Amino acid sequence: MDGLVDKIRQGDRRSLARAMSLVAERGDTAEALKDRLRRNTGQVPWWGFTGPPGVGKSTLIDGLLGLLREQGRRVGVVAVDPTSPVSDGALLGDRIRMMRHAVDPDVFIRSLATHHREGGLSDATLHCARLLELARFDPVLIETVGVGQNEADIASVADFCLVMLGPGYGDEIQLIKAGLLQIADIVVVNKCDLPEAQRLLKDVREELGESATMVGDASRKDDAPRVEIVGLAAKSGAGVEHLLGKLLSLDQAARGAERCVHHRHRRLLGEIRRGALSTYERALEHALASAVAQDLIRGLESGELSLEEAIARLEDAARH
Amino acid sequence: MDGLVDKIRQGDRRSLARAMSLVAERGDTAEALKDRLRRNTGQVPWWGFTGPPGVGKSTLIDGLLGLLREQGRRVGVVAVDPTSPVSDGALLGDRIRMMRHAVDPDVFIRSLATHHREGGLSDATLHCARLLELARFDPVLIETVGVGQNEADIASVADFCLVMLGPGYGDEIQLIKAGLLQIADIVVVNKCDLPEAQRLLKDVREELGESATMVGDASRKDDAPRVEIVGLAAKSGAGVEHLLGKLLSLDQAARGAERCVHHRHRRLLGEIRRGALSTYERALEHALASAVAQDLIRGLESGELSLEEAIARLEDAARH
Repeated sequence: MDGLVDKIRQGDRRSLARAMSLVAERGDTAEALKDRLRRNTGQVPWWGFTGPPGVGKSTLIDGLLGLLREQGRRVGVVAVDPTSPVSDGALLGDRIRMMRHAVDPDVFIRSLATHHREGGLSDATLHCARLLELARFDPVLIETVGVGQNEADIASVADFCLVMLGPGYGDEIQLIKAGLLQIADIVVVNKCDLPEAQRLLKDVREELGESATMVGDASRKDDAPRVEIVGLAAKSGAGVEHLLGKLLSLDQAARGAERCVHHRHRRLLGEIRRGALSTYERALEHALASAVAQDLIRGLESGELSLEEAIARLEDAARH
Repeated sequence: MDGLVDKIRQGDRRSLARAMSLVAERGDTAEALKDRLRRNTGQVPWWGFTGPPGVGKSTLIDGLLGLLREQGRRVGVVAVDPTSPVSDGALLGDRIRMMRHAVDPDVFIRSLATHHREGGLSDATLHCARLLELARFDPVLIETVGVGQNEADIASVADFCLVMLGPGYGDEIQLIKAGLLQIADIVVVNKCDLPEAQRLLKDVREELGESATMVGDASRKDDAPRVEIVGLAAKSGAGVEHLLGKLLSLDQAARGAERCVHHRHRRLLGEIRRGALSTYERALEHALASAVAQDLIRGLESGELSLEEAIARLEDAARH
């Protein structure tokens, strides 16, 4: 174990890759490594990237990787593929564009295709991001598709969040915005070389109203956290360098001891909470697989049991 | 209560709308109504529709509504907007196209923008779909955006599921497919007037391989449930009538007493399970808001507590 940790610290990629597989397992070695990671990380800011499928997150991250490498930064990326909870699917999201960086020894990209049960995505993301920190990658970027639950997950893990939007999502852009904008520190509108994107940019500005600072507005000096809005074109690279400036200033702010401790603690509490919840979920599944389930259904259908009574009986059964 | 139920049965739309607001509340009246619904519904098949944002689900449902109305069917629709769990947002998804049917007395469209905590989406969907059944709408259509958790939710509620895909979602189509295809009874590829959609249709066929039956294949006679693949163009309406034929045969199959009971029981167990889980989640939040949280963090950071021990302590705290 000590040997593995040392090798990761020294930048050995094979040890890092091996540790990333190890933390996905249960068992004493895996748990000991995870304990070690919990105690020896939490100094490097984690940048969250989310947005609807196909909006251009990978292209943007590819561009940012190039610029960060020019600055001599070693960058780790965790790309979270939210496959269905019914899926035990292997790695599917091939992020071809980013892959040109995958051969760079100062870039490490890990794609996670964990299913969403038992706090799977969030915990796996935590472990991998911590491993990247241990291997002295800085910053650590986390990418996930944001619809439904995922964006809350990334908000609970990352130190700050970039939410990417693009034109062409029809009516439903409204609801995507509603959810995503609430976790955003920066909102990026992609494809700003197209007129539809300019309209979307305008909508986002109106939606965020007073709380947002526009690009080029240098007044962001006070402590109140405000959402910034950036328009760019990820494919051509226009506006990406400007965005990086914004991200680096969020990165600087997240390095302050207080913010850093705050995020580290939040992540620890999240882990404990998800652990307790998944223990309970297993107990519920177990109880529901027993004869109790038929009794509950009979009781509900005959009117003998109210839903609350049925729930109380299930809780009892799960406790024993 | 009896008066309200009678009026809903007689087709009074205002009573139905009032009951839909009522079931979103807690309290004795709401619970009594929900109990009543649980015992008096479960005969009408619920058709699930899911797929990525903007793929054309509303346009397709609009087309199906037109055709079902020509056949004299009274159709209820629950459109689920998965706003973020951090959102308490009001109704946002304006489904303009479907709205031409909203003035039809034999169509009822309910848009739900519940947040995703405490089994919110699934329970609210259940209650509204049951109310539509009580008001003698048949079939009941349920639409939701499918990424991450949502598609599992709709699979747990609907009697069968249509998954809609379309071209233009980049690399991530792979992972969307992986998750969504597993819950699909029918996979629809939209925009089949475009060559990209034809390529996607080919991909889906390969992905589903042996388990799928192609359009025009009349051999779907055996009992083994197989996924059907349908290409269409929702906007022009091409292929929608053909799809409706497929849906109506799934609808017929779902009316058989056995399947119907199976789905009803699965929904009841889901409700009980979500109820027990949300009680426990509240207990966890409560415990984490206390001084216990700081103790756990200190213990983890100093190495005095392993994660398992921290989880066990949280479980204890949540129990008292």
